[in-house]
Amino acid sequence: MLSFAIIGAGRIGAVHARSVAAHPAARLALVADPDGEAAARIAGSVGSSGVRSTTDVADVFAATDVDAVIVGSPTRFHVPQIVAAVEAGKAVLTEKPVDLDLARVDECLAAVGDRADRVMVGFNRRFDPGFAEIARRVADGEIGALEQLTIISRDPAAAPAPYLVGSGGIFRDMTIHDFDMARFLLGEITEVSAVGQHLDPDIAAIGDFDAAVVTLRGANGGVATIINSRHCAAGYDQRLEAFGPLGSLEAANHTATAVRFNGRGVSGSSGPYLDFFLQRYEHAYSAELDHFITAIESGVAPSPSLRDGREALVLADAATVSATTGERVRLGAPVSA
Amino acid sequence: MLSFAIIGAGRIGAVHARSVAAHPAARLALVADPDGEAAARIAGSVGSSGVRSTTDVADVFAATDVDAVIVGSPTRFHVPQIVAAVEAGKAVLTEKPVDLDLARVDECLAAVGDRADRVMVGFNRRFDPGFAEIARRVADGEIGALEQLTIISRDPAAAPAPYLVGSGGIFRDMTIHDFDMARFLLGEITEVSAVGQHLDPDIAAIGDFDAAVVTLRGANGGVATIINSRHCAAGYDQRLEAFGPLGSLEAANHTATAVRFNGRGVSGSSGPYLDFFLQRYEHAYSAELDHFITAIESGVAPSPSLRDGREALVLADAATVSATTGERVRLGAPVSA
Amino acid sequence: MLSFAIIGAGRIGAVHARSVAAHPAARLALVADPDGEAAARIAGSVGSSGVRSTTDVADVFAATDVDAVIVGSPTRFHVPQIVAAVEAGKAVLTEKPVDLDLARVDECLAAVGDRADRVMVGFNRRFDPGFAEIARRVADGEIGALEQLTIISRDPAAAPAPYLVGSGGIFRDMTIHDFDMARFLLGEITEVSAVGQHLDPDIAAIGDFDAAVVTLRGANGGVATIINSRHCAAGYDQRLEAFGPLGSLEAANHTATAVRFNGRGVSGSSGPYLDFFLQRYEHAYSAELDHFITAIESGVAPSPSLRDGREALVLADAATVSATTGERVRLGAPVSA
Amino acid sequence: MLSFAIIGAGRIGAVHARSVAAHPAARLALVADPDGEAAARIAGSVGSSGVRSTTDVADVFAATDVDAVIVGSPTRFHVPQIVAAVEAGKAVLTEKPVDLDLARVDECLAAVGDRADRVMVGFNRRFDPGFAEIARRVADGEIGALEQLTIISRDPAAAPAPYLVGSGGIFRDMTIHDFDMARFLLGEITEVSAVGQHLDPDIAAIGDFDAAVVTLRGANGGVATIINSRHCAAGYDQRLEAFGPLGSLEAANHTATAVRFNGRGVSGSSGPYLDFFLQRYEHAYSAELDHFITAIESGVAPSPSLRDGREALVLADAATVSATTGERVRLGAPVSA
Repeated sequence: MLSFAIIGAGRIGAVHARSVAAHPAARLALVADPDGEAAARIAGSVGSSGVRSTTDVADVFAATDVDAVIVGSPTRFHVPQIVAAVEAGKAVLTEKPVDLDLARVDECLAAVGDRADRVMVGFNRRFDPGFAEIARRVADGEIGALEQLTIISRDPAAAPAPYLVGSGGIFRDMTIHDFDMARFLLGEITEVSAVGQHLDPDIAAIGDFDAAVVTLRGANGGVATIINSRHCAAGYDQRLEAFGPLGSLEAANHTATAVRFNGRGVSGSSGPYLDFFLQRYEHAYSAELDHFITAIESGVAPSPSLRDGREALVLADAATVSATTGERVRLGAPVSA
Repeated sequence: MLSFAIIGAGRIGAVHARSVAAHPAARLALVADPDGEAAARIAGSVGSSGVRSTTDVADVFAATDVDAVIVGSPTRFHVPQIVAAVEAGKAVLTEKPVDLDLARVDECLAAVGDRADRVMVGFNRRFDPGFAEIARRVADGEIGALEQLTIISRDPAAAPAPYLVGSGGIFRDMTIHDFDMARFLLGEITEVSAVGQHLDPDIAAIGDFDAAVVTLRGANGGVATIINSRHCAAGYDQRLEAFGPLGSLEAANHTATAVRFNGRGVSGSSGPYLDFFLQRYEHAYSAELDHFITAIESGVAPSPSLRDGREALVLADAATVSATTGERVRLGAPVSA
Repeated sequence: MLSFAIIGAGRIGAVHARSVAAHPAARLALVADPDGEAAARIAGSVGSSGVRSTTDVADVFAATDVDAVIVGSPTRFHVPQIVAAVEAGKAVLTEKPVDLDLARVDECLAAVGDRADRVMVGFNRRFDPGFAEIARRVADGEIGALEQLTIISRDPAAAPAPYLVGSGGIFRDMTIHDFDMARFLLGEITEVSAVGQHLDPDIAAIGDFDAAVVTLRGANGGVATIINSRHCAAGYDQRLEAFGPLGSLEAANHTATAVRFNGRGVSGSSGPYLDFFLQRYEHAYSAELDHFITAIESGVAPSPSLRDGREALVLADAATVSATTGERVRLGAPVSA
Repeated sequence: MLSFAIIGAGRIGAVHARSVAAHPAARLALVADPDGEAAARIAGSVGSSGVRSTTDVADVFAATDVDAVIVGSPTRFHVPQIVAAVEAGKAVLTEKPVDLDLARVDECLAAVGDRADRVMVGFNRRFDPGFAEIARRVADGEIGALEQLTIISRDPAAAPAPYLVGSGGIFRDMTIHDFDMARFLLGEITEVSAVGQHLDPDIAAIGDFDAAVVTLRGANGGVATIINSRHCAAGYDQRLEAFGPLGSLEAANHTATAVRFNGRGVSGSSGPYLDFFLQRYEHAYSAELDHFITAIESGVAPSPSLRDGREALVLADAATVSATTGERVRLGAPVSA
């Protein structure tokens, strides 16, 4: 049984609270957020009594009944909270990105040192049942060597401008998931080429792209293509196709039900894609937590690691440069998988 | 090279004329129809010169340059024209049904005698690439013994009432194709149970059903279900599912293109089903003709045979009785496949 | 907050325990089963402390902290437990069937009287998101009047013979879900025709069918077809198609992921259907419980009712007669929806 | 009625001969090929008598009964034959590419001058029913402004090395179709970025790529991504997705039938994609010819034009440079659609 504290009582904190409550080997002990009402609300939502809440994050690190900390605070707090939790002897599951600034991520890695094998970065999509199945089948050699990977990842609608201003830009905020997925499936990346699009004038006005196409070359000869957009009329568009000499594996979008309509002028019509990440990746969040608990309980380093978090940011930085300068970026130090 | 005459210059005559013109081992010599203009139009449509037309069907039987006759006239003329063609030494491909009256079909069989091995009945759906593939894979044992067969067959819209009045009723006019398909896949049928529906008051007024569900029990323990309707908003609904202990094979509907739309509130939306039998079964008509030519040229009896035409009518008669009386009909003499 | 006792610590009892534990307005107070270990195991499984267990079902009816009882015991105990619970003032959610004997169901209805509006029968499939969506869209008139309903319902594999011996036969044990679904969508049924199949000699030896096709005529002119089998190689085959003049709505099977493989000789290949009712209908059980709680809390009669349980059994009895005698059964007293 | 000569009695010449024979407003007069037997074979294959053949291409230009010439010879002969045919007053439908050398294409344009409005380049995919439908629906505004276009185009297997040696490289030989499709849907292209892959050592040995990913930026802000491979285990992979603010339109692959298999461990499994361009684009070739005939007969310039052929080659040249240098290529003179 692993006892958890959650830092951050926002949307993602609530998701983690539900996952912890539902997991037979986990219990929720404490929720911390400067907004005490939000913290108390999540603490009280999980159905078991005795979950405490606090407005002081220091309580988390001091709590003797907390084994593991889930960091779901705003990005700028991730690094100090990861470090404080690790120094207090806690295992850590942190939301992505570790930080928007590579130098600070490197400071975090230095501060954490060997204890990084008790820190996991929440690239939840690795735990999506469909993507995980593809990763397993590719690893099993079902399609041969992975030659071409295509990731289509579109949000249903852009987040509000105030959020995007501090987001680090589309590549660090949104594509970072796809960079991690590319590394997860393709391994080491040697070259990045990105084309950004200014389709939404409001987003262009804050200096960010709202759509992009990124090409990554892998050390093994494979190429990954990532196609992003901040909007998609049919919902949350999350697809992936892995292609090799023996075949291809594709993960299609999900709909709420398997109902199809046929009528005047139309056939096979389903409902829209599941609308947002909470629905689409509900199972991924549970499986992510399960992996974390199993790894920590058995003394194995959880994955994706802090270093995986760093390497995804390296790719995001490179894509930002490429999209801005129009030049392809070759990665000096190899980015190992 | 087989030289053809076509009797009947209607819609189906035109289909056959195109198939003959496109077949490398066939040529069209003569088209006969009381409507001389229609006959001439089809004769002139096929692009090769020298196709004659006539208003006198006797010319067909007398023509020394005609090896084979396609009978596409109204149903009541089928039997005399089949017999006359056979007696003139011609091979015959006749449209279904052979006749609406079983006694007349039996007279036809008696008159034709041994020469029935040069007569084929145009149950075109046996030659649909999808249904033919399923028949072949079932015969190859891919799903084990066929246990349950489900045929869904719905027209896009009811034919005009004047046509339906003389059609022999839904079971002899429409379901007869499905009865043949059931025999094609399941073999001998021993029992028929039919439920008719009066949904369209105009069709009810002429004493016919416009929708029906028929259950057929096979001698081998399998059961076939046929679901019919005279209308279908999404087009011509032609599906089939064969189920056995090792799996199932389903033939889905066809659409004009493989284009799918995703948008606000909808995903995976295709165009409607192909709208009518000329489009849906275009390939089936070509393959049917090819089978006929190959069989006749090589001295093998073509299939489906006149007897297959008879047995489908036996099932249609039994279904008519069952739907009218509400009783299940057990077939005295086995209906062999 | 509704406080529950569960009678029966088998597979279905465990499902309900999880649903109760996960529901924010429910709590589990007591689990009763003659097998005390099983009862204790379920009581201890839900993560909240203070859930009691007992081997004496009388404790359930006596418990003052129990508002509602879920009856998940073997079928022969359903009626006395429903009656005892109602007489103790509890609301009841009972598994189907109410009983295998119509006379006993009628005794139950008589004993319960007006308090039937606090009893719900667990026809869980009405709460499957896909089937529920179709029911709602049909009710909204999206396809016009429901003319033809096709239900395909096949288990992955037959239950062991000892279970089947006491099951009441395929129509009362398995098809009863489909009878309820037919009534749910089509309303009052006036006529039943059933064909049973003896494909599995072990099941034939105990006098039961292992596959069947049932045709139901509705009072409104619609017809429902039910196709059942005790086995299906690809998994739990649970499909439904509602057809009307304006279109059709189909519910396709579910697979574990949306991954498809394309390779040598194959394309679009998914994994098998979800393998059994616990996976396939996981969401249905939760939604069923939610409906029950909402109805009871707000003083509205939950649905499906005890009477719905009775009418499904009437159809199962009629199908049993029809399949045995080969006669169509007309239902004397109308079976109202 | 348009009278045709075909130059080139290879695989593509045979396709065109069949299309001409089947078209009601076309007739085949002459087939020219240095291989006289091949020319005679095609001339004799179309079922109508009087089709001549010759080994001397000059006969084509001299023939007074030839209105239009289909150029299906090896690429190096295209330009002189186009020019000679135009100077002889013939309309021309030429296979792609016009030439592998942009300077020679420009010479061709100069020589042809105003008579270019009677010359069409055979980018057959524009006439594929699915792609044409998407183009029409995009033009109709169904998805709003086209923001992202994804073209996946993979051959079933690489052509033999001797063919590839003279092919001009993957971008001029294979991707050229996709460049034309990108221009067809997205309009003017301003920037090209290409990544080539050396997966097949035999193809690498002749200095060519066997797979590639190309990103094109459109003048209107849209981006097209092209994903190519010389091999695909499941057949000829030809897909396209057009994405805009109001939705997306995707063209899926084609299979020979709509049959799907479900069984142990698998569901929804279809046959492979149609295996090669002759099957996949059969309808496209017919529609292409029909467009050509209609345009020429009505005095309208057919499309795609010689200039479209030039612009596709410009993109292929740019992609070759980009893949070789690793630099993005900005197109100086705008490439107008």
